[in-house]
Amino acid sequence: MKVCVKVPATTANIGPGFDCLGMALPLYNTITIEETVLPGTGVEINVMSDSDSVDQLSLDQVPTDENSIVYKAVELLYNSIGQNPSELKINIQSNIPVARGLGSSSAVIVGALVAANELLGHPADEVALLTIASEIEGHPDNITPAIVGGLVISSQEEDGSVVYSKLNWPEEWKITVCVPDFELSTGIARSVLPEEVPMKDAIFNAKRMAMFVDAVNKKDSNLMKLALQDKLHQPYRMKLVPGFDSIMENLRHFDNVLGVVLSGAGSSILVISEKNNVDKIYDVVRETWANQNIKCTIKTLSVENSGAQIISNEN
Amino acid sequence: MKVCVKVPATTANIGPGFDCLGMALPLYNTITIEETVLPGTGVEINVMSDSDSVDQLSLDQVPTDENSIVYKAVELLYNSIGQNPSELKINIQSNIPVARGLGSSSAVIVGALVAANELLGHPADEVALLTIASEIEGHPDNITPAIVGGLVISSQEEDGSVVYSKLNWPEEWKITVCVPDFELSTGIARSVLPEEVPMKDAIFNAKRMAMFVDAVNKKDSNLMKLALQDKLHQPYRMKLVPGFDSIMENLRHFDNVLGVVLSGAGSSILVISEKNNVDKIYDVVRETWANQNIKCTIKTLSVENSGAQIISNEN
Repeated sequence: MKVCVKVPATTANIGPGFDCLGMALPLYNTITIEETVLPGTGVEINVMSDSDSVDQLSLDQVPTDENSIVYKAVELLYNSIGQNPSELKINIQSNIPVARGLGSSSAVIVGALVAANELLGHPADEVALLTIASEIEGHPDNITPAIVGGLVISSQEEDGSVVYSKLNWPEEWKITVCVPDFELSTGIARSVLPEEVPMKDAIFNAKRMAMFVDAVNKKDSNLMKLALQDKLHQPYRMKLVPGFDSIMENLRHFDNVLGVVLSGAGSSILVISEKNNVDKIYDVVRETWANQNIKCTIKTLSVENSGAQIISNEN
Repeated sequence: MKVCVKVPATTANIGPGFDCLGMALPLYNTITIEETVLPGTGVEINVMSDSDSVDQLSLDQVPTDENSIVYKAVELLYNSIGQNPSELKINIQSNIPVARGLGSSSAVIVGALVAANELLGHPADEVALLTIASEIEGHPDNITPAIVGGLVISSQEEDGSVVYSKLNWPEEWKITVCVPDFELSTGIARSVLPEEVPMKDAIFNAKRMAMFVDAVNKKDSNLMKLALQDKLHQPYRMKLVPGFDSIMENLRHFDNVLGVVLSGAGSSILVISEKNNVDKIYDVVRETWANQNIKCTIKTLSVENSGAQIISNEN
């Protein structure tokens, strides 16, 4: 039996939504799990890429041994029905840039889980998949949109359960994803955050978060411009993403730009704009980064409203 | 010339919306400004009450001299067109309990401003009224709904301007306003708040704020139950409102209760519920407070969708 699952990239935080908002994007990893015929062959994990945007260095960071997050995901699911995984060949076709704040790890975790769940005859429902995947990833921000698609508010409650609610991101708001040629590990990006923040910054973000949800609901571009600000994580991470402050500054007065934010913890930057006229945005981003000797890949995307999908199941 | 303006009570914060959310309620103060015929008579301010819920002690706290917030409001408006107020008789019919977190000061500021604006032939537009009133009150949380009605997200931006956005509070969500017989000044309620808060609490509130706006938009009671929580101000103010923690605890498992929150900084408590079946809520609140020798007035209200209204204009 051979199951193949396609999982979207995801961006998290999106301005004021630190550890709260996530959105699926139309870039995909494909995870295939095949039952092998030879008993006792264990679990083999292979990673491939056919994309120019993923360099070999990044690929090396998807660990292929049994300790990897992929193995862990599959193991947890098998364990949940009293089994252990073996005689499995897992292939990861990786097209989502790694360590760039685009949810590549969430995509492989979710892909492996959904494929294994299909192989095993669906022992886990959506709630269980969300919980297991968030446990491995550490938080549900990227996991939830990778599973359910779209733009979502998600929260891991005190009992460990993941709750989420979907919002309708306006089709006319484009997301220009700017991926630099340097990586940023989530660990380092977390280490620069303080444990305490000024009360006024906490109030600032809660207010912007309210505006964000209301602006999305009303498709109100002016409100969205006010909403796409953050004082909880971006100011601390500014130094880890060279050029971010300059790109923000250089795009500030563009009429069609609603906001410039970090994708997840970085290193990618998202430019949210309301028209298709993105050429000048590309120029500004390329030029600003070029001045700092940073190469980049830029793509303008819409939201991906579908989450992980089984694209083939061969018996 | 004599202008009479009716202004609603307002509640602010409403769970996660500390310094961000405000809602108008159908309890009213009425402010009348009359031009007197005798030159040089200055400005006379009188406060009256015909409501049992407002005791004499509270009334005394609406200052009647020229330094009062009412005089200040009128003065700022006259000054904005190069005049000084004089020969004015201002009557305040006060039915909103004072110093109970129900926006009584915002109501008199807004009432005086709107009445004076009418007298002067509308020199100030809504933006100007919001800005002047928020300047006097110190923040726009109660001012904005007192002027525009309904449930609003409001924010005083760095340039001093007030921006707001209205949300549609579901009619079927009732607001039980529980007013105890003790006052709580906003000054004291602010003094117990820390200048810094844990990052995780800031994230908690931003997330709940997102859920709140989404729950209101979708009329989703289950999401609203998750949303109506706060870690930024209520935990610190708990000790200033005896019985608040017990009332929360005693109502926690009521099926129809979506949340129990402070109204503004207190001392009033709001119970948000989704059906009209509120008798048992009354019993719990009365009994819990009675055990602490606290008397109370309880009313179940809907949102007031209109803000300040001119109810008469006699030339």
